[in-house]
Amino acid sequence: MSITLYGLCGANPDRPFSPHVWKVALALAHKGLDHTVRSVPFTAIPAIEGGATKTVPLLRDGDRLVSDSFEIALYLERTYPDRPSLFGGPGGEAMARFVESWSQTQIHTALVRMVVLDIHDLLAPEDQTYFRASREARLGRALEEVVAGRDGERDAFTARLEPLRSTLKGQAFIGGPSPLFSDYIVFGALQWARITSPLKLLAGDDPVSAWFERCLDLYQGLGRSVTAA
Amino acid sequence: MSITLYGLCGANPDRPFSPHVWKVALALAHKGLDHTVRSVPFTAIPAIEGGATKTVPLLRDGDRLVSDSFEIALYLERTYPDRPSLFGGPGGEAMARFVESWSQTQIHTALVRMVVLDIHDLLAPEDQTYFRASREARLGRALEEVVAGRDGERDAFTARLEPLRSTLKGQAFIGGPSPLFSDYIVFGALQWARITSPLKLLAGDDPVSAWFERCLDLYQGLGRSVTAA
Repeated sequence: MSITLYGLCGANPDRPFSPHVWKVALALAHKGLDHTVRSVPFTAIPAIEGGATKTVPLLRDGDRLVSDSFEIALYLERTYPDRPSLFGGPGGEAMARFVESWSQTQIHTALVRMVVLDIHDLLAPEDQTYFRASREARLGRALEEVVAGRDGERDAFTARLEPLRSTLKGQAFIGGPSPLFSDYIVFGALQWARITSPLKLLAGDDPVSAWFERCLDLYQGLGRSVTAA
Repeated sequence: MSITLYGLCGANPDRPFSPHVWKVALALAHKGLDHTVRSVPFTAIPAIEGGATKTVPLLRDGDRLVSDSFEIALYLERTYPDRPSLFGGPGGEAMARFVESWSQTQIHTALVRMVVLDIHDLLAPEDQTYFRASREARLGRALEEVVAGRDGERDAFTARLEPLRSTLKGQAFIGGPSPLFSDYIVFGALQWARITSPLKLLAGDDPVSAWFERCLDLYQGLGRSVTAA
């Protein structure tokens, strides 16, 4: 059976940038599952698979359709149990939800305030219209106002990473000596920023930076297949 | 073989309050291991077991001595593998380190600024002298100055709990449908505050409050065996 991962791109179809799609791309590589990636712009998402989803990632595996990155990871874990585990057991599956919650509430919220205008600028015109309207409604300000203070946000962002930095004192990955889906969750957020924005987020000597480079190296450098902005 | 857990108390030996000792108390209950608790004041710690440790918890299990709460949890998991798992597999063991890092860097640092003077006040005089000197050196200010702004810190503290609150939307415990050591890690921090300080930290309708009550109920209400301050 063939697997298709539907993802997100801007004007350039070769630069997929969705954090949640990157999580799934690494999860598929982790499981060693061959697949085709189809990246579409924001305004084309509702037409995917006959209106199957409002958001990407969407995974088609034979006759199954699954959306939401964590649901896809769970699906892959259940469907391909003989391949390397994405969670390392039931405790890891539950705690990956904590990592996801941390990443969404602490990391994504900070990153979006720094990169949202850069994302806008790499979209095609019709997507820019959709993106600006939806994000300005969500953020309550013009995108230009949101990012105006971004240089001052970097120190606060560095502080927000402290739980990850502290974890990495004792182990190479959030998942332990080798990566698990929990790593891909946080990787996805930083990869999103790496691909969309030239803003340098991490100091070179930050242990989080070393961990991110290790994640970029995984699966024959899958994360490096799209260059930094 | 008999198990002894050395813990920490103030002037009243029946009110052990160390967050890290509470983690181990729940871990021992989780494993169903009978044990004796011996709580000592700060200045008596160096005399425990002939100078075996500078900090509690310290666990004696037969002829083995183990210190540090996470190391003790790992020891119990390895030594009593047929009893209920504290981690739910290798992924959960690795990610419990992330939960610990989050708790230490985000929760403990905030709590100490709110409860440090209350802790001081429940110690015996000789321990107060040690505690004030060591904590004022660490915090860089008089204890009274540290806690002066604590009422204003509560909103920020509530915000810090957002990753846990978000996790609890989908599951009853950090460990999933039932608790794991990762729950006891965060429970220990809030139990420390509950026992030492009358400050009300959580709104009654906060999902974190409901989770904390569930943790207090565990093992025949073990956490409630010491009343709130």
